[in-house]
Amino acid sequence: MPPGTLTTPSQHVREKRRRRRAEILHAALRAFRDKGYHATTLEDIADQLGVRKAALYHYFPDKEALLYDCHAAGLAEVHRHVAEARTQVSARERLAFLIREHVRVMTETLAGSSLAFEVSALSPAHRAEVIDARDRYEHALRDVIAQGIAAGEFHDVDPKIPVFAILGAINWIARWYRPEGSFHAAELGQQFADQLVGGLARR
Amino acid sequence: MPPGTLTTPSQHVREKRRRRRAEILHAALRAFRDKGYHATTLEDIADQLGVRKAALYHYFPDKEALLYDCHAAGLAEVHRHVAEARTQVSARERLAFLIREHVRVMTETLAGSSLAFEVSALSPAHRAEVIDARDRYEHALRDVIAQGIAAGEFHDVDPKIPVFAILGAINWIARWYRPEGSFHAAELGQQFADQLVGGLARR
Repeated sequence: MPPGTLTTPSQHVREKRRRRRAEILHAALRAFRDKGYHATTLEDIADQLGVRKAALYHYFPDKEALLYDCHAAGLAEVHRHVAEARTQVSARERLAFLIREHVRVMTETLAGSSLAFEVSALSPAHRAEVIDARDRYEHALRDVIAQGIAAGEFHDVDPKIPVFAILGAINWIARWYRPEGSFHAAELGQQFADQLVGGLARR
Repeated sequence: MPPGTLTTPSQHVREKRRRRRAEILHAALRAFRDKGYHATTLEDIADQLGVRKAALYHYFPDKEALLYDCHAAGLAEVHRHVAEARTQVSARERLAFLIREHVRVMTETLAGSSLAFEVSALSPAHRAEVIDARDRYEHALRDVIAQGIAAGEFHDVDPKIPVFAILGAINWIARWYRPEGSFHAAELGQQFADQLVGGLARR
């Protein structure tokens, strides 16, 4: 076995734990989406995974911790995309990339869950953290539009308004999207990007 | 007095009643927006108007009737705009007109209230009626986009997706808009129309 593929037992355990954690989060998201956060119990989530409730406590102390981790996973992704978008050559490409990727987070990572509407159930500390991460993401989107205006790529508008339109269109996906439906995430992301970025661009 | 301006007493009474009704609806919308539908009482609405609760019963039997009338007023307006839009010369102009007017309904008629999220509190008959009127509006928007595609004005896309983006952007207004804020309805409507229609149009 070449040295680079050597896997110590603890790495193996860590990887298994990481995958299990992701499975639990995904089951939680589906349950929150289908029944609503308040009506969902830890038993529902354990049932979906075919395990006993006690098995979940190795990973999450309570339901709020699961909700927080769902938020944190989605927000970590969109913030990673903000960093990745810097390599795109124009503001127009950066914005289209961010919209496509955010649509993928809504449809895949968050499984079409309306998580974006559920901050009131978070603990005060977690709520403040989630709102802060959202605000920073909103500002990052405004910055991309402001850069596009400065570069002459976009019409001269108050960047707040197109960012509200973009976030509204994307967050609304939770209202109608079903993973088993006929729209694929990639197609949806591309169409949203074409519509929402194209309308800002100078001809 | 020229004959055209002659007003019979019953017309005068009807007009006064219509205005009073509109004032009550507007006070109800503000209260629903600020406190949420469930937390709002008829006393809150009467207090806002400086009248006693009993005075409201001349117009509305209960809180659900007020909620239903708020929905009905907004939906009647958007359906009137669908009819009015027919006089616009192109699908592009029709769609821009409908977006501008819908933004005005959200910000003015509905005072930035998140009414669009509150159908579960309606009686089953009212709920079915509201959902049906919404569905017809959604289909009218899809028809305008399909007409634009057929006329070669818009890119060839599945009209459902841009309609979801448009309704998401507009309904999301309730999440951030405050009537006392710095954005005017007309400016907002124009920017939404430019962004959401412009991105569909063939260059």
